[in-house]
Amino acid sequence: MSEPFVHRERVRFGDLDAMRHLNNVVYLRYFESARIAFMSQLSPGHSPANPERGDFGFIFAECHINYRSPVHFDEEVEVRCSVGEVRRSAFRIDFRMEVGDRLCAEGYGWLVGFDYGAERAMQLPGELRARLEAEAQTAAG
Amino acid sequence: MSEPFVHRERVRFGDLDAMRHLNNVVYLRYFESARIAFMSQLSPGHSPANPERGDFGFIFAECHINYRSPVHFDEEVEVRCSVGEVRRSAFRIDFRMEVGDRLCAEGYGWLVGFDYGAERAMQLPGELRARLEAEAQTAAG
Amino acid sequence: MSEPFVHRERVRFGDLDAMRHLNNVVYLRYFESARIAFMSQLSPGHSPANPERGDFGFIFAECHINYRSPVHFDEEVEVRCSVGEVRRSAFRIDFRMEVGDRLCAEGYGWLVGFDYGAERAMQLPGELRARLEAEAQTAAG
Amino acid sequence: MSEPFVHRERVRFGDLDAMRHLNNVVYLRYFESARIAFMSQLSPGHSPANPERGDFGFIFAECHINYRSPVHFDEEVEVRCSVGEVRRSAFRIDFRMEVGDRLCAEGYGWLVGFDYGAERAMQLPGELRARLEAEAQTAAG
Repeated sequence: MSEPFVHRERVRFGDLDAMRHLNNVVYLRYFESARIAFMSQLSPGHSPANPERGDFGFIFAECHINYRSPVHFDEEVEVRCSVGEVRRSAFRIDFRMEVGDRLCAEGYGWLVGFDYGAERAMQLPGELRARLEAEAQTAAG
Repeated sequence: MSEPFVHRERVRFGDLDAMRHLNNVVYLRYFESARIAFMSQLSPGHSPANPERGDFGFIFAECHINYRSPVHFDEEVEVRCSVGEVRRSAFRIDFRMEVGDRLCAEGYGWLVGFDYGAERAMQLPGELRARLEAEAQTAAG
Repeated sequence: MSEPFVHRERVRFGDLDAMRHLNNVVYLRYFESARIAFMSQLSPGHSPANPERGDFGFIFAECHINYRSPVHFDEEVEVRCSVGEVRRSAFRIDFRMEVGDRLCAEGYGWLVGFDYGAERAMQLPGELRARLEAEAQTAAG
Repeated sequence: MSEPFVHRERVRFGDLDAMRHLNNVVYLRYFESARIAFMSQLSPGHSPANPERGDFGFIFAECHINYRSPVHFDEEVEVRCSVGEVRRSAFRIDFRMEVGDRLCAEGYGWLVGFDYGAERAMQLPGELRARLEAEAQTAAG
């Protein structure tokens, strides 16, 4: 049984806003960093920083965040990611952000398979889809 | 009949990511800037940058974004904001981002009334609530 | 005689930090946006967002900022750019940031000509160098 | 003999720009985070996120960066900080950024003592100044 994926961020001065809390936009930045690290683990060889190397990639199509509690300077945020629903050409990544056992935010993002050569949506490759479905069952189980 | 509120952003080099599109996180930054300008118009005297001056404020509690099309360097993005649902202690701001007549994203955010003195949620002041409900009817009409 | 180049930014909530002033890092972001707009005017066809289209480009090699006064939410900052020293393969862009007649910061950046095909520094093309030297004389005059 | 101070950052997707390198502005963000952590070590009790708690603070008055080599996605950057010159009411923090043994940038920032109650520059407290001078000698040694 696999360990749940956890990405960690320590809140920087530059992540705060004039309210002196973690800015609401930066939660989405943390989720971006977590999601990319999670995808690198699920789909080795996928590099978001060199998209031309392969034809297949993902488009970030939708996101949702529920903010649960404020986060402060220098706190360590754990961003737990798991695979939610898996469809033919898209899948959902769910996340929870916690500081210790305090829930700070939860939400999800939808990723859609995309053929960067042809510039259109495409089905998930079979091997990746099988991997995602196995992850989704682990997360649900 | 009032004009719909429009906030404009010209896409900066620093708003792009390695895919050379407007980064998905920056859409939420644009919505933040638009929402704050919209609120200043609806509730003059409300300043997000000096929250201690008054007791009443808002917490950004939830957001949702549907990404519809990529946005490029130096394009001018129009962020149209309107009031959606209004409840006793919270209300929803809906947004659409467009470049010319191309829809780029749409979504919403929930704002919850908050008493910064007592540090708890509070009902919207009656005058503000009436103003928001009038705006919501205009938007729906 | 040419007008000096001015780029304008209105300070966004997201540009503030926990001190409720324009964050020191964002001054450099403003200079980046100003510099790129200035270069597009001096060297039409140069696009920082699609660097592969041509072989010739620039590397940002050095910067300096003197912070002169704090900047607040919603103030309009004028970033004035001019060409300073011009060398065989590099040139300096000087900047001043002002809100009304209040000086907020001044500084400069060095740009070095770069051959992205060969991945090495290269001399400035003659036409660009002549243009930069004419600008530098205007600025000095 | 004290160890030199090192702050570490792993390059995030959101730290890249359209050139697919660490954006030049983000170098200054990394230095900000490193400097704040360094100051917390030198001056415990100094919190940049709650400036009102004490009267004494610092203003970031000047910075300089020499960019030496590009930095890529997911690389770990070590930001080494040391105290340079110490004056009556100001001091310089020098930094070097390295990935392994590759020098990526070097530069410095000047911090000026500031009385937030009186809103004017002030001399460094004697204890802090002694500590900074000891650090400066260690760095020079």
